[in-house]
Amino acid sequence: MRSTLQRTLCSDLSTAEPGTTVRLEGWVHRRRELAALTFLVLRDRSGLAQVVVRSGEVPPEETTVEVVGTATANAQAPGGVEVTDPVITALTEPAATPPVELWRPTLSAGLPTMLDHAPVTWRHPVQRARWELAAASVRGFRATLDAAGFTEVQTPKFVESATESGANVFAVDYFGRPAYLAQSPQFYKQQLVGVFERVYEVGPVFRAEPHDTVRHLAEYVSLDVELGFIRDHRDVLRVLRDVVAGMVAGIHEHAADAVERTGAQVPVVPEEIPVVHFRDALAMVGAPADEPDLAPEHERALGAWALEEHGSDFLAVEGYPMAKRPFYTHPWSRDGAGAPPRPPGHAGWSNSFDLLFRGLELVTGGQRLHTPSSYDAAIRARGEDPAAYAAYLQAFRHGMPPHGGFAIGLERWTARLTGVANIREVTLFPRDLHRLTP
Amino acid sequence: MRSTLQRTLCSDLSTAEPGTTVRLEGWVHRRRELAALTFLVLRDRSGLAQVVVRSGEVPPEETTVEVVGTATANAQAPGGVEVTDPVITALTEPAATPPVELWRPTLSAGLPTMLDHAPVTWRHPVQRARWELAAASVRGFRATLDAAGFTEVQTPKFVESATESGANVFAVDYFGRPAYLAQSPQFYKQQLVGVFERVYEVGPVFRAEPHDTVRHLAEYVSLDVELGFIRDHRDVLRVLRDVVAGMVAGIHEHAADAVERTGAQVPVVPEEIPVVHFRDALAMVGAPADEPDLAPEHERALGAWALEEHGSDFLAVEGYPMAKRPFYTHPWSRDGAGAPPRPPGHAGWSNSFDLLFRGLELVTGGQRLHTPSSYDAAIRARGEDPAAYAAYLQAFRHGMPPHGGFAIGLERWTARLTGVANIREVTLFPRDLHRLTP
Repeated sequence: MRSTLQRTLCSDLSTAEPGTTVRLEGWVHRRRELAALTFLVLRDRSGLAQVVVRSGEVPPEETTVEVVGTATANAQAPGGVEVTDPVITALTEPAATPPVELWRPTLSAGLPTMLDHAPVTWRHPVQRARWELAAASVRGFRATLDAAGFTEVQTPKFVESATESGANVFAVDYFGRPAYLAQSPQFYKQQLVGVFERVYEVGPVFRAEPHDTVRHLAEYVSLDVELGFIRDHRDVLRVLRDVVAGMVAGIHEHAADAVERTGAQVPVVPEEIPVVHFRDALAMVGAPADEPDLAPEHERALGAWALEEHGSDFLAVEGYPMAKRPFYTHPWSRDGAGAPPRPPGHAGWSNSFDLLFRGLELVTGGQRLHTPSSYDAAIRARGEDPAAYAAYLQAFRHGMPPHGGFAIGLERWTARLTGVANIREVTLFPRDLHRLTP
Repeated sequence: MRSTLQRTLCSDLSTAEPGTTVRLEGWVHRRRELAALTFLVLRDRSGLAQVVVRSGEVPPEETTVEVVGTATANAQAPGGVEVTDPVITALTEPAATPPVELWRPTLSAGLPTMLDHAPVTWRHPVQRARWELAAASVRGFRATLDAAGFTEVQTPKFVESATESGANVFAVDYFGRPAYLAQSPQFYKQQLVGVFERVYEVGPVFRAEPHDTVRHLAEYVSLDVELGFIRDHRDVLRVLRDVVAGMVAGIHEHAADAVERTGAQVPVVPEEIPVVHFRDALAMVGAPADEPDLAPEHERALGAWALEEHGSDFLAVEGYPMAKRPFYTHPWSRDGAGAPPRPPGHAGWSNSFDLLFRGLELVTGGQRLHTPSSYDAAIRARGEDPAAYAAYLQAFRHGMPPHGGFAIGLERWTARLTGVANIREVTLFPRDLHRLTP
């Protein structure tokens, strides 16, 4: 029978009046048996507390328990207060031995063990802190956009055709006919700019990635933003800057303790993110002027340059060749003195950008086409019929503003922040080519 | 060429100094041509503004435009200020005629027209306001839980087996092997209580509903909550009360204007939601004592009773028969003077509840089993092998606290709030048996 006394969280034990009776609940994080007594370290959502047990059994690690005892000052205990003379009541059956020792300061299990036992390995304080960074980042993402007049939307994950990219799409049996899982909310967030002007969505996206890499998942969380009445992609980049700064602020505000536990290197976001044109970027890294994309080593070199030259963990590369961007991408429009000439035989630059974070691509964004005739032309240029896009094109035929947006992969962000080698280490229950459980 | 002047939102026009030049951007909401002039009503995300055009063409309705002109006091204009002597620049090609007249105060189109042209019909100020209520509700939902120590999680939508309910599940071709789309995050949110104690998730869930009703969708947004270290389902109900109150507060704080536009009847959430036991509920509505569930007319009668007796739009019915609840449901444990006896031959009552909102089921919740032996027994009682649930059961074998939770269907909530006849009217892009587009 549990006591009716109000619960004290482990992190609040330090504020308990010594000598008073307290009630804690949590998991047996560790038992340390000495000759005359046992130390029970209790873990709850707030942290750890030390319980001194002089008689009686302590349930095995990970068993959930109630502890009612006396708050007692002890400079050696976490927070300076421990619990003595406890009555310990197990809240479930004795727990099976965990697949890894969760009480050790670092989680040393190999990745397959970590992933196979995710419901248990996420309990490790360092591992849990990684997700706390993700959650705090999302909170900061939303707070920034809410304050800037954006509306949160929820768009459908079932889509009729695989038109957006065609490749790597999951097929579903939809009441006996084929449907697909959305690879991004791209088409829908654009249509909703027509309604709300400024929208964002946090939700799962699905990619049938046939490659088994440390960077790819079959399902991940996309932080999507789209806004209307921009002048060009630089307006989008300014919003992205504020969003990333808001994610960082969210971490400092809501997950300071998780930063400490993970040793995450939280970046400082400059007031203005440095921007280089794709053509200049190629020249800077010594790549041929007709390269259509940046290789990972180019991105790393550019990241190092941004840090040295601008003291910035972030660098935007703008103007990627149209040929490497999706059909709805707006062509380059920043004319003027500094506009680089288009190389001969080249489809031209685009009003799009990648944001590099410490030399790795974190975000892709840019301005989209917005006139119906430009969509018709772009779709025909792919050898397709605009009629196949009729539902999407409705929005444009009925009046859309110049607009653009971007998408941040949540797991990539957290992986960079914490420096883990594999994106699966920061995904609660990763899904990939080989893994569909737990 | 657009002006470089800073944009004024329609809602801010009333604060512009008369005589100054202002720049607005938005959609041509309406053109009203009189003999000597044309009134252009401009619509942006913030509202409407009146522009007086004395010469030149006004683009057709829904075309996006920039308007640069003089702010001029006029008591007849919305907010007391209109724009005169405008220079109007179209930002796209002339818009096609909308499928419905968006400038009319009410949207009178039939449901199929509404849905077929969703990207356009959502632009109607009343229709848009319905989603604004949904977005503000979600914001209030999260704010309440963030403040109460909950962690936001993102759980996988691809699952290996259809074990949770078996029926109405969508199958996916997952790299050549079968997978399913999660019907709820139930199993995962429970496992994550083992990590974070208190979790919530806002995300899509997938139900292959073969019925074409006004209440069901193939994909909807579920607001899921789960928390540990409860005593029984009444602790869950208390959190639910606070969450619903938070959703209402979110509406008042962030969507007051949308309440006005939709005429939504926003409820007052009582400090404590009245609770009746399922057995008493049956007796109150004159149903036989061995009825296993409440019929819709019973729910309506109970809703009317709650309003009359308690002045409450909400009523919780607790103790539903175990036979009608999922296998992970905790049996009734509130013993004592008032506990109703179990009828003979009856599997017993459960620690679960439904929350009725104005006589309609809005939320199902309750306490779950938490010991591994109770799961093994419950799964075997269904004639199944616990080994099939190995991934899920890991969490329980390694120590779980007493816990429970609930799920709110976002679209159902908004539908009740706004009084629409069909849930599709409050879903941005509904998916059902027949509809997969737009």
